[in-house]
Amino acid sequence: MYRTHNCGELSAANIGEKVTLAGWVQHNRDLGQMVFIDLRDRYGITQLSFNEKSAAGLLEQSKTLGREYVIQATGQVIERASKNPKNPTGEIEIFVEELRVLNVSDTPPFTIEDESDGGDDLRMKYRYLDIRRNPIKENLLLRARINIAIRNYLAGEGFIDIETPYLIKSTPEGARDFVVPSRMNQGQFYALPQSPQTFKQLLMVAGMDKYYQIVKCFRDEDLRADRQPEFTQVDCEMSFVEQEDVIRTFEGLFLHLLKEIRGIEMDSIPRMQYDDAMRYYGSDKPDIRFDMRIHELNEVTKGHGFGVFDNAHLVAGIAVDGCSGYSRKQTDELTDWVKRPQIGAAGLVWIKCNEDGTYKSSVDKFYSSEDLKKIAEACEAKAGSLILILCGEDAKVRKALGALRLEMATRLGLRNPDVFAPLWVVDFPLFEWDEETQRYYAMHHPFTSPKAEDMHLLDTDPGAVHANAYDIVLNGNEIGGGSIRIHDPKTQMMMFDHLGFTPEAAHEQFGFLMDAFRYGAPPHGGLAFGLDRLVAILGGNEIIRDFIAFPKNNSGRDVMIDAPSALADEQLDELSIKIVQE
Amino acid sequence: MYRTHNCGELSAANIGEKVTLAGWVQHNRDLGQMVFIDLRDRYGITQLSFNEKSAAGLLEQSKTLGREYVIQATGQVIERASKNPKNPTGEIEIFVEELRVLNVSDTPPFTIEDESDGGDDLRMKYRYLDIRRNPIKENLLLRARINIAIRNYLAGEGFIDIETPYLIKSTPEGARDFVVPSRMNQGQFYALPQSPQTFKQLLMVAGMDKYYQIVKCFRDEDLRADRQPEFTQVDCEMSFVEQEDVIRTFEGLFLHLLKEIRGIEMDSIPRMQYDDAMRYYGSDKPDIRFDMRIHELNEVTKGHGFGVFDNAHLVAGIAVDGCSGYSRKQTDELTDWVKRPQIGAAGLVWIKCNEDGTYKSSVDKFYSSEDLKKIAEACEAKAGSLILILCGEDAKVRKALGALRLEMATRLGLRNPDVFAPLWVVDFPLFEWDEETQRYYAMHHPFTSPKAEDMHLLDTDPGAVHANAYDIVLNGNEIGGGSIRIHDPKTQMMMFDHLGFTPEAAHEQFGFLMDAFRYGAPPHGGLAFGLDRLVAILGGNEIIRDFIAFPKNNSGRDVMIDAPSALADEQLDELSIKIVQE
Repeated sequence: MYRTHNCGELSAANIGEKVTLAGWVQHNRDLGQMVFIDLRDRYGITQLSFNEKSAAGLLEQSKTLGREYVIQATGQVIERASKNPKNPTGEIEIFVEELRVLNVSDTPPFTIEDESDGGDDLRMKYRYLDIRRNPIKENLLLRARINIAIRNYLAGEGFIDIETPYLIKSTPEGARDFVVPSRMNQGQFYALPQSPQTFKQLLMVAGMDKYYQIVKCFRDEDLRADRQPEFTQVDCEMSFVEQEDVIRTFEGLFLHLLKEIRGIEMDSIPRMQYDDAMRYYGSDKPDIRFDMRIHELNEVTKGHGFGVFDNAHLVAGIAVDGCSGYSRKQTDELTDWVKRPQIGAAGLVWIKCNEDGTYKSSVDKFYSSEDLKKIAEACEAKAGSLILILCGEDAKVRKALGALRLEMATRLGLRNPDVFAPLWVVDFPLFEWDEETQRYYAMHHPFTSPKAEDMHLLDTDPGAVHANAYDIVLNGNEIGGGSIRIHDPKTQMMMFDHLGFTPEAAHEQFGFLMDAFRYGAPPHGGLAFGLDRLVAILGGNEIIRDFIAFPKNNSGRDVMIDAPSALADEQLDELSIKIVQE
Repeated sequence: MYRTHNCGELSAANIGEKVTLAGWVQHNRDLGQMVFIDLRDRYGITQLSFNEKSAAGLLEQSKTLGREYVIQATGQVIERASKNPKNPTGEIEIFVEELRVLNVSDTPPFTIEDESDGGDDLRMKYRYLDIRRNPIKENLLLRARINIAIRNYLAGEGFIDIETPYLIKSTPEGARDFVVPSRMNQGQFYALPQSPQTFKQLLMVAGMDKYYQIVKCFRDEDLRADRQPEFTQVDCEMSFVEQEDVIRTFEGLFLHLLKEIRGIEMDSIPRMQYDDAMRYYGSDKPDIRFDMRIHELNEVTKGHGFGVFDNAHLVAGIAVDGCSGYSRKQTDELTDWVKRPQIGAAGLVWIKCNEDGTYKSSVDKFYSSEDLKKIAEACEAKAGSLILILCGEDAKVRKALGALRLEMATRLGLRNPDVFAPLWVVDFPLFEWDEETQRYYAMHHPFTSPKAEDMHLLDTDPGAVHANAYDIVLNGNEIGGGSIRIHDPKTQMMMFDHLGFTPEAAHEQFGFLMDAFRYGAPPHGGLAFGLDRLVAILGGNEIIRDFIAFPKNNSGRDVMIDAPSALADEQLDELSIKIVQE
């Protein structure tokens, strides 16, 4: 062992002890007659001191130690002349008697400080240096704490950690698979799992009753800023349960984490129907840290000669408290904001509910003060509120208002990352209509069971069928989702049929699951958390990449190891594949 | 919830309670006026009873319940007339008042019993039914217990669980990689990790100090019976440590597991040098549940006119206690056994040390009774021992005797799976010479550090250089291995040079690691356990496949889901790859 203690554990209680520490040189303060070195490791920083009383040559040697040198120092713990109450080891320092350089370091390409001067690209290329920085290190430590807290909670609830395979079978339904050519079965490919969905269902058929796994999943999608091609899921499944049982189990897990990790106690998590989430928040993952609901205004706006509103399918608005003082420039800027293609509104109508009880709006021409008051009442606006109104096709308006609602909350500081507002969104639709391909897709996945009471609509009005499907939402982010699954082959076949699978295609892709359902499948359901996002939000920072040790960039590259990369010809030959040149 | 209790928890204490159970029909004993059903779930079996006093129609309905039907039954817990002390619930039964069939089942393709009539292929195809069988279910439960015991032990020792990426870079050194074509970077490929080796070293450079991960690894090798293309490693790394620290840490982990899982307390694990293991056991993973060492016999056999021995590089033998009574047929059969190509001996010389003090051998022509006695003494044979002698080239003889030693021990029942004999094998050679390619390979991997005291031999006699490398062996199986790593770029470059890498090739493949070593890499080392094998041995059964939920067969196929499989042409097009037809 190169040390007797780590750099975070010595205190006044150790004064007089002879210790050996090892770590990295964080700072070297050379005061001529004295040198102070901050020695850093994973556990903290301890000050080393050298002066004229040091052993021969030691003071001089200490001056040569550069940033990030790895050293081993032995000496006595002494009381510090100027204590640093902010550092847990700030009462003491080590007066060094022996010093050994374990490794030298080039000057790092960016500063290893809480606030680094390194840009994103540089930090990713030298990720091993980036991780030395406290914020990233703390993120990884937090992730490990959450990971084991989840495991112990679930194990305590009787869940069994079972590993499912990574080399599985490609299925065209859903997102694109990453595939792996098989050398032993030429011309054939494995796929990497997008989730262990079918395997966890097979484990329920197998009688394992309660399963969980913290597992990597893979999706070959065009990456957005916050998506990774490989991501981690806390994957769970239970037998002999109904929706209520699953929700209660994982509500327990989440509240346990909130307490363990953030010290926040909460009794229960509110629930909201999917239809209400869309109606009042324009989103299936509402951020309920603040209210600012969407209100329908067709009734109170129609018949005043304002054709834009009169002809709109939906007129709806939100009341933003404390913004009635917005200048013309500010409202214009908001108008531009909603007109951006990402939002896609045609325009924005605003009403200021002044503190003195008067109203001012961008549609004063059509609406009297009395009319505006009625609109304000419909929006539950207060004196000081700024009402923002959009109109048009129902779903579009709600979605745009949902985005505007988040934007206004961000501007007002209502999205405090240290406040946690979890929410269950329940009763999702079974299907989702896709305009482009003109067909229904499974909103969750093809194994989700329809609500018994909606089964009669399956043929006549599939879009109206609700599912036993639920999401858990945290601060406006989906952190998990699941469903009660279909467990009989007949319903499963009907579902495949509605999704446009021929019986042959269904058999080809999911025959093993249909087969399994013939041998006594129990009723079952489950849930999967997205661990990367869950950790990021609990860490108070929504940048997922900062909570992954070695993330990939937006083109799916690992710029540190420079992957993906070209293969040797022999490797391709062995796999019997060839690259098609464009 | 479909149940109030599970099928393993009711006892006499619950008599009189009304309960609801759900599970699978294990047996249906129809006695005409009475029906008894064994209801099974993960937790156990509870008897349900029906008779003429049952509610109308219930007795008749119970007779229709086939094997593996999934049912829900509500009724009262009553004392059983004929108790079954072997079953934890054997004192009670449920007199059923309500019965609901949750799912029917076809007749399973094999019996769901501890001893099944299903062959391996059938069991793999219907693995979800195989897992319903107690032995497989118990194996998976054991695996989960070991998994979380490892995690909690390592977390308690300050190890941090950090996930490393699965989509990494292909390196031609070592075994063959599985590769993943990148759609976003056409013509380029990721590789699946054979181990997180370089990443865990980078985490040490990053200052994470103690890392662990239970992680899937991948090797595209021609499969042997006990190899899987994907396997699980308990991967660990520590900074500022020497070999002794690593060994002590993981000895602690292993002994903890032995106690937790098997209730066996052991103070420490013996150590053996690699050279001694090869010399005395003909193996780098000796099974030391029994002794039966290899003894060198050149001295005592030479000069008696037996040319085969006189001209042999090595004459060596083992003494097998209690086998002096072997018949001619038995010794002939042993001779055939050692002549098989897998062992490759030219012949076998035997000496029987009869109980009456006389000797009988297959070389009586050359050796007098006195000579045989000397050989017997050299072998530490006793009255009743059978001495088995091979001769030829040193390494070959030792390897063959090592195999013969295991075979004899198996025949004698000396390899009791409930006895555990762990062993550290230390001081491995740094390099291994490959006859075929006429070059040295790294015995562990290219990042293993040479012993400081052997450094001077690196250029003159590389084969004699020992490494700071160690394996942990259990009952003749390697269950883990590791090393102290190189942590400075100069030694690493020298190592690559000895392995025949050009500086360009070394940079191309491991440039990121060499770069990292320039910024203050700490001394570090670690170890990885093979979890599949560890669990199998602790489970008292060395068939790894029985401890994996969904294993692949010897051609790397998952016969249940039928993977790998052909891809759709569009998938290949998107990836810009083409299959080369033979």
